[in-house]
Amino acid sequence: MNLTNISQAKVFGGWHKQYTHSSSDLNCDMRFAIFLPPNATKESPVPVMYWLSGLTCTDENFMQKAGAFRKAAELGIAIVTPDTSPRGDDVPDDPEQAYDFGLGAGFYLNATQKPWDQHYQMYSYVVDELPKLIEAHFPVTTKRAISGHSMGGHGALTIGLKHPELFCSISAFSPIVNPMTCPWGQKAFSHYLGSDRATWADYDSVELLKKQSAIQPILIDQGGSDHFSEEQLQPEKLIAAAEQTGHVIELRMQAGYDHSYYFIQSFIDDHLAFHAAHLFPSSEED
Amino acid sequence: MNLTNISQAKVFGGWHKQYTHSSSDLNCDMRFAIFLPPNATKESPVPVMYWLSGLTCTDENFMQKAGAFRKAAELGIAIVTPDTSPRGDDVPDDPEQAYDFGLGAGFYLNATQKPWDQHYQMYSYVVDELPKLIEAHFPVTTKRAISGHSMGGHGALTIGLKHPELFCSISAFSPIVNPMTCPWGQKAFSHYLGSDRATWADYDSVELLKKQSAIQPILIDQGGSDHFSEEQLQPEKLIAAAEQTGHVIELRMQAGYDHSYYFIQSFIDDHLAFHAAHLFPSSEED
Repeated sequence: MNLTNISQAKVFGGWHKQYTHSSSDLNCDMRFAIFLPPNATKESPVPVMYWLSGLTCTDENFMQKAGAFRKAAELGIAIVTPDTSPRGDDVPDDPEQAYDFGLGAGFYLNATQKPWDQHYQMYSYVVDELPKLIEAHFPVTTKRAISGHSMGGHGALTIGLKHPELFCSISAFSPIVNPMTCPWGQKAFSHYLGSDRATWADYDSVELLKKQSAIQPILIDQGGSDHFSEEQLQPEKLIAAAEQTGHVIELRMQAGYDHSYYFIQSFIDDHLAFHAAHLFPSSEED
Repeated sequence: MNLTNISQAKVFGGWHKQYTHSSSDLNCDMRFAIFLPPNATKESPVPVMYWLSGLTCTDENFMQKAGAFRKAAELGIAIVTPDTSPRGDDVPDDPEQAYDFGLGAGFYLNATQKPWDQHYQMYSYVVDELPKLIEAHFPVTTKRAISGHSMGGHGALTIGLKHPELFCSISAFSPIVNPMTCPWGQKAFSHYLGSDRATWADYDSVELLKKQSAIQPILIDQGGSDHFSEEQLQPEKLIAAAEQTGHVIELRMQAGYDHSYYFIQSFIDDHLAFHAAHLFPSSEED
């Protein structure tokens, strides 16, 4: 099996486990983590929330700092956290090793420009390779939700909006909603996708939303004291685009909260409950 | 004021804040963190749980990984996390920079041997200087509980047992209960305290317990799959000592759990509720 278990720890009656595997999409070895709630068995598999992390993160940040397992164990939801970029000595990085491009900053897209295109294919990895791997090896169903933070909120929104058949609900903390117009997005997209901005729109939540005839339920939390909000995140642009196109997105401004995992842990229970409502359709509606 | 705020983040309606200060007991600059629940005000101060961390930790490990703030906010308990040793270029470290002695491994005692005695005075710092500082600067009462993990469980038990007037309840995860008889304790005590083992007993929970006529309520959780349990921790020795002397200590063996913060986060709510029962005496008993 193309899957090597490198750690496991019991937590809230379930298990946190890390694995490495050889990724064909990313053309390198990758690590991911999975939380399996106590009720996950082959006979009774559970749905999965995919969590996409932000700049500089690995599979570990959410698992260590989000405090999500108590609620996920209670609800019976597995959580999968991929890394945020391809990794390894062969994988090119920002020449200046900046935190916002290259390693740790894959932006959940498929790069088309050299030298990035050989490895930076995080979009395909998250949409295709990773769910197939998870569903082949773990006691999970094909019911999926997607969530993320900052760059990972961008990933959750763009991937979720493009794949309603894969993800029944979407949520985000402090997402980059309009990367075409912010410094983080412009830097990454110009290198990964080249100068033709028409290709950028396919990875921009605001632009994607304008083309959608329908959208899944979406919940967004944004810290009111997040110092990245004005220049990089601009969540109000997504709400404006939703209003223009007749869609409803819930954006909750959380006064006083910043961009950190202290913010995420304060509201992750709400996000898990939100996804649970869609991952477990009420029996009354059957 | 001898207190510099270096970070703050809103979390569960309260605040996580880090401070540095010049410590007279430790003869160096120190950092600590405090969680203040949302209801903590000058007019309505709250009790404090002091948390002592294990080998290699700083003030950050518990605050980032224990998932304690949801319950602490609900109960109205502040949490203070000191560092695990003196710090700084002037502070001597293990010549081989081992993880289990020197920096990050102060063992919550007052060193008597050179060169350690100039800085390694964590016992006095936790018992005296830190509570005074906290109570002078934050909206807290003088009701205190103490808890910790591994080396910090040793710290919580020894300091708590010696100071029932300061700490109304004690809890620990995976504590080193008999450091005189385990490799971690013997290495640290022989350097910090010298070769006279009679001086070691003053920092050994099992030995201290034998001399106590009464003890506070004590709760201990121990992971059943903790690979440090047999050689270093040996919690059953504390239970045996308690039985010999007629004291009652609750030791919960938690099957399958290891030595990590995944274990701690699974049961920290129980510890907070345990301390709350003693920090907030029932009005019926008034």
